[in-house]
Amino acid sequence: MGGRVVRNIDRAAASVIDGLGHAGVATVHEAQGRIGLLASRMRPIYPNARIAGSAVTISAPPGDNWMVHVAIEQLQQGDILVLAPTSPCEDGYFGDLLATSAMARGCRGLVIDAGVRDVRDLTRMNFPVWSKAVFAQGTVKATLGSVNVPIVCAGAAIDPGDVIVADDDGVCVVKRAEAAAVLEKAQAREAAEESKRRRLAAGELGLDIYDMRGKLEAMGLRYE
Amino acid sequence: MGGRVVRNIDRAAASVIDGLGHAGVATVHEAQGRIGLLASRMRPIYPNARIAGSAVTISAPPGDNWMVHVAIEQLQQGDILVLAPTSPCEDGYFGDLLATSAMARGCRGLVIDAGVRDVRDLTRMNFPVWSKAVFAQGTVKATLGSVNVPIVCAGAAIDPGDVIVADDDGVCVVKRAEAAAVLEKAQAREAAEESKRRRLAAGELGLDIYDMRGKLEAMGLRYE
Amino acid sequence: MGGRVVRNIDRAAASVIDGLGHAGVATVHEAQGRIGLLASRMRPIYPNARIAGSAVTISAPPGDNWMVHVAIEQLQQGDILVLAPTSPCEDGYFGDLLATSAMARGCRGLVIDAGVRDVRDLTRMNFPVWSKAVFAQGTVKATLGSVNVPIVCAGAAIDPGDVIVADDDGVCVVKRAEAAAVLEKAQAREAAEESKRRRLAAGELGLDIYDMRGKLEAMGLRYE
Amino acid sequence: MGGRVVRNIDRAAASVIDGLGHAGVATVHEAQGRIGLLASRMRPIYPNARIAGSAVTISAPPGDNWMVHVAIEQLQQGDILVLAPTSPCEDGYFGDLLATSAMARGCRGLVIDAGVRDVRDLTRMNFPVWSKAVFAQGTVKATLGSVNVPIVCAGAAIDPGDVIVADDDGVCVVKRAEAAAVLEKAQAREAAEESKRRRLAAGELGLDIYDMRGKLEAMGLRYE
Amino acid sequence: MGGRVVRNIDRAAASVIDGLGHAGVATVHEAQGRIGLLASRMRPIYPNARIAGSAVTISAPPGDNWMVHVAIEQLQQGDILVLAPTSPCEDGYFGDLLATSAMARGCRGLVIDAGVRDVRDLTRMNFPVWSKAVFAQGTVKATLGSVNVPIVCAGAAIDPGDVIVADDDGVCVVKRAEAAAVLEKAQAREAAEESKRRRLAAGELGLDIYDMRGKLEAMGLRYE
Amino acid sequence: MGGRVVRNIDRAAASVIDGLGHAGVATVHEAQGRIGLLASRMRPIYPNARIAGSAVTISAPPGDNWMVHVAIEQLQQGDILVLAPTSPCEDGYFGDLLATSAMARGCRGLVIDAGVRDVRDLTRMNFPVWSKAVFAQGTVKATLGSVNVPIVCAGAAIDPGDVIVADDDGVCVVKRAEAAAVLEKAQAREAAEESKRRRLAAGELGLDIYDMRGKLEAMGLRYE
Repeated sequence: MGGRVVRNIDRAAASVIDGLGHAGVATVHEAQGRIGLLASRMRPIYPNARIAGSAVTISAPPGDNWMVHVAIEQLQQGDILVLAPTSPCEDGYFGDLLATSAMARGCRGLVIDAGVRDVRDLTRMNFPVWSKAVFAQGTVKATLGSVNVPIVCAGAAIDPGDVIVADDDGVCVVKRAEAAAVLEKAQAREAAEESKRRRLAAGELGLDIYDMRGKLEAMGLRYE
Repeated sequence: MGGRVVRNIDRAAASVIDGLGHAGVATVHEAQGRIGLLASRMRPIYPNARIAGSAVTISAPPGDNWMVHVAIEQLQQGDILVLAPTSPCEDGYFGDLLATSAMARGCRGLVIDAGVRDVRDLTRMNFPVWSKAVFAQGTVKATLGSVNVPIVCAGAAIDPGDVIVADDDGVCVVKRAEAAAVLEKAQAREAAEESKRRRLAAGELGLDIYDMRGKLEAMGLRYE
Repeated sequence: MGGRVVRNIDRAAASVIDGLGHAGVATVHEAQGRIGLLASRMRPIYPNARIAGSAVTISAPPGDNWMVHVAIEQLQQGDILVLAPTSPCEDGYFGDLLATSAMARGCRGLVIDAGVRDVRDLTRMNFPVWSKAVFAQGTVKATLGSVNVPIVCAGAAIDPGDVIVADDDGVCVVKRAEAAAVLEKAQAREAAEESKRRRLAAGELGLDIYDMRGKLEAMGLRYE
Repeated sequence: MGGRVVRNIDRAAASVIDGLGHAGVATVHEAQGRIGLLASRMRPIYPNARIAGSAVTISAPPGDNWMVHVAIEQLQQGDILVLAPTSPCEDGYFGDLLATSAMARGCRGLVIDAGVRDVRDLTRMNFPVWSKAVFAQGTVKATLGSVNVPIVCAGAAIDPGDVIVADDDGVCVVKRAEAAAVLEKAQAREAAEESKRRRLAAGELGLDIYDMRGKLEAMGLRYE
Repeated sequence: MGGRVVRNIDRAAASVIDGLGHAGVATVHEAQGRIGLLASRMRPIYPNARIAGSAVTISAPPGDNWMVHVAIEQLQQGDILVLAPTSPCEDGYFGDLLATSAMARGCRGLVIDAGVRDVRDLTRMNFPVWSKAVFAQGTVKATLGSVNVPIVCAGAAIDPGDVIVADDDGVCVVKRAEAAAVLEKAQAREAAEESKRRRLAAGELGLDIYDMRGKLEAMGLRYE
Repeated sequence: MGGRVVRNIDRAAASVIDGLGHAGVATVHEAQGRIGLLASRMRPIYPNARIAGSAVTISAPPGDNWMVHVAIEQLQQGDILVLAPTSPCEDGYFGDLLATSAMARGCRGLVIDAGVRDVRDLTRMNFPVWSKAVFAQGTVKATLGSVNVPIVCAGAAIDPGDVIVADDDGVCVVKRAEAAAVLEKAQAREAAEESKRRRLAAGELGLDIYDMRGKLEAMGLRYE
């Protein structure tokens, strides 16, 4: 029933985090074996944001944003707030005042499986948010939740300190311990894609580049 | 079953309406005690629109936009059309021709718990719409509805002449009789927020500004 | 169970296709008798795209984008890829590499009743997509589907070679054999609208322009 | 922000209420001009329940069922609890203990635009509930709401003391002041339907009974 | 825009229809290559109904059930009414009076991608309906639709005279011309399943019966 | 990307599991601090089922049920299959043949965040399933997933061997290591509820039993 705040969490190396952010959600998700995506309902409040950071997690009761204040104290430069309500809720837990406070602590953005408000201000402040709703509905401060405990956010299991990558394609989580290895694979993937992109742009077909024709025929594909 | 058009409705003072528009949805909704929001499915067709105006209400059958024509005659400078279908519907009741006509009558925008179309034209015309869908599906003109009767739109009870505030955060209704009082509270709220914003930007924590630590401890919050 | 690729499909005349694209979804849909719209969940990944082209259809298993590669070989200049999964799916079947390949073949865009990813890249490339989701979830290449067979996409029956029109209002299909006739009606409609637009902008009411007052009264509309 | 309990509410006559219950949702809704239905998401937890009663309304914060206890004290024999959360919520506000208490006060059932739990027990107790979800999620008792104030529940505006009719088809509200008149119309409707039912069962067509053929032809219906 | 009634449609042989009904939705759908299912939102109003029949199709405007009356005249013994609204709608197009009339004409049931009402009566009458909603919302009779034209219902393309199979698993359509061939495959499938069912019930594993172990190993499955 | 099968998993004691099953979802969920519920979309295919068992988990690709066969070999008496697709999917992964096989291995039921079919047969067999959809859509056997790995199913993190409790209220997971402690609390809760139930049935109010009047007054509740 909440009531816990974990103060010391481990984080991945800054260079690894930034590398994952550069690679972006689709590449990172592929690089780690097609896992870690949050549900597609998590959409950015404005286009062209792309961030990565360490998750400071919040488990919050429905319609109660008290724990956001508690979490902000736990933020370090480069962190991302990640909030999962304990039951489905789309209230606007977060607006421009909390964003001002979070930015002052070095926070890079918010991922919230609920609502957000003041989105015009947040856009102006360049504070990116991925949420399931934009909704002005206010919240109370009456019941405890927890900070920096394991949560499930939009269908993904997230531990505090895990690396969050978010861009126009959505949000992906990378387990902290695997972040460096995933980055390597992501970079390899990017390199490999580059040559393919050039060949495809020149008009070569994926059917040939990936050598699919034989397998398709063996599976029974017939041209008419 | 419809068939009524109320011609004379009372409106709030223009200065009050404009003040509420300036305050915006989130602030107004808080100022009146966290009530009056329309459901979060009501989204603007383009960003950065912010309006307030008096509701000219429309109760329309599913897939029948006849009453929109009737309502436009009832518009006065500064009004907002608010349409609720009598059963759930996402047809495109409204497009650029109706917007042209409504604008000619001084209409500031449309709030519709259904669909809208010609959104590129509407954007170009700077005629803002909050709707639950963008959908080109055409409508007929075969069955009566009513204009300027009480409606429930996207979960909110709206009387003709109530003040509608709409921006990127969604849509909020303020009862006409309470509009002046709500504006006062909204402005007080904005003033109070300003000083808090400065303190939060300087790195102070909400935990301290709002004096929450004692209450959190009393509730049993434990740091680990 | 798939496994068919139809190579030779008939297409409408380029001038007809381009004319329909110029008219846009709402007008074309009205011109052909209010039919042909895909469901409103089909939204563009960026605003202000407006295209028309011949449908190259794909019936694909859930989470399997193998047939997209097969379909790209069948593309001709001016075509649009139209993908319907064989059961509901929001995986990201399509990203920047496939778009690079499709563009190299002259493809004008993608309509997909599933997910799309790399939307920032696609936006930069000016490759428009209408989809029901933005989702980075990767797909496999393990099971056959079909290319250029009749499909139902987002509620609309689409045959290969049908004309697809897509813009900010959504997506509409025009049967190939009726495309020229629909274009004529669409153009007539546009012309008729122009004069109405001027009259409405000047303050005339639809009630008068469309001569509705008598019929409304006969139906029982009462003013209070 | 809640905090009000209205103790004395007016109710319709018991015989009127019971008559409306006997007529059922579809007939009552038609009799009053096709208004008053709650949204179709409101489904009964078991089949074959059919009740009518006076609304004791509850406006409750998300995930907080404190006000249900307050409302139960206000119940009189024949009442129905009607709960609307102040923002969308599907938590299980109500289970077998509250039902036991409500039944002891003469309550006939619950209409809740949120969740309910212990549905096996409620079924066994023959305490009917119409809800938007079955969900065991527990609630807290930390924030005030209101009892016997006007609410919007599942899209319908409901005042305390209004008559609620609920059966397998859903839920309908009848304004208290109009209940007697609606009952009369409902009974007239039932009588009229009876003779039509016999004629239809004997094979006569609605086309003939309702004399539709001429009007259809005039509208342009063509047989092929 | 509707207005057509096709009077003479071809139907499959009664014995084929009944055979498909006996096989049921899941088997028939598999037998014809995993195609033909209507969307999963189509649910029966009561359990244990299982029917098959020839589709008499209805394309109806939103909230307008006039064409149902027209369609009933076209019914023959063993037919099933299949209604698709021209835009998404959940109004209750159909209730006990129409069911009485349809039954008198030999109709076996209704498939409707919209709402139905009087479900308690329909259950008592043993008239099965598969719908996307139960909703009492009444409809008007003001606008033409069409009867016995091709429709898309809940995502499936249906021609008049196609065979509809419906049971607790949902609804499936079989093209009339393929009905006999599909029945043969369905019956072969049923026979094959029977022996597998006995082996599985005796504790044999699908891994062995279907000889999967080698392929799984080749694909890289590893046991830990 | 899958491909792992863990053969030896730890399970809770049978008596603990059965005790939790007897307590039911709502009580168990409360006893462990209001955590562990799966999303409310998980509904039973027939009423009055109540089971508990050890989770044998399946992570399966969309539309591919190959791993169900692999998982069945890992079942022990008293286990429950728990399947989460790697991306949202409602295909019918499971029907009567697989149920026959699972029952032969002692399986008590299935929890699947996707579709199920043959529900009439499953009901007859008394094999309970909690799913997000009933859908006949068939699946393929082409891509590997994993068995007995940690999964997130319908929003809940589930490890193999965790205790699953499921009844008419939905599904709850109890961590294996905490199962005994949760059972104790659940039983204490049940005992405490019994005396309250008697008092409430006798007409005492929760306001008095739980001593709420003072706190409500302090919070500002006012009676009118």
